[in-house]
Amino acid sequence: MMKLKAVFYHAGCPVCIAAEDKLAEAIDATRYDVEIVHLGDSKSRIKEAEEAGIKSVPAVLLEGTAFHINFGANLSDLS
Amino acid sequence: MMKLKAVFYHAGCPVCIAAEDKLAEAIDATRYDVEIVHLGDSKSRIKEAEEAGIKSVPAVLLEGTAFHINFGANLSDLS
Repeated sequence: MMKLKAVFYHAGCPVCIAAEDKLAEAIDATRYDVEIVHLGDSKSRIKEAEEAGIKSVPAVLLEGTAFHINFGANLSDLS
Repeated sequence: MMKLKAVFYHAGCPVCIAAEDKLAEAIDATRYDVEIVHLGDSKSRIKEAEEAGIKSVPAVLLEGTAFHINFGANLSDLS
């Protein structure tokens, strides 16, 4: 079965880590390929995140729809 | 196996519906019991949500940790 795509964007902030531990981990890995992207380390992917509608981290992109979780950091603070 | 507990709080707003369709649906139902609570309809549960740390909807409570998603409505606007 072709898996759905989930991308969890974060930047290592405490809110991000909690969200990764609980929320990214809760996603059904039998249906979703879950990719974790640290935008602080992978600055080359900030543009891709912005184009997908991500405005802050932590956030999760589920099949192209961006969901921002709590509030960690603005993308503009990472680049 | 004892399942983990996930509660998705919303209030029927468009942001809530998108989050319910994608994010609540992505949670692994083999590991989590996912309960969906519409706080507009179930006002009696607003107090419980507030006590769990929910400040706005849509939000998901995973094993007691509150994650607010995007921004739909303040709890104070629902009561």
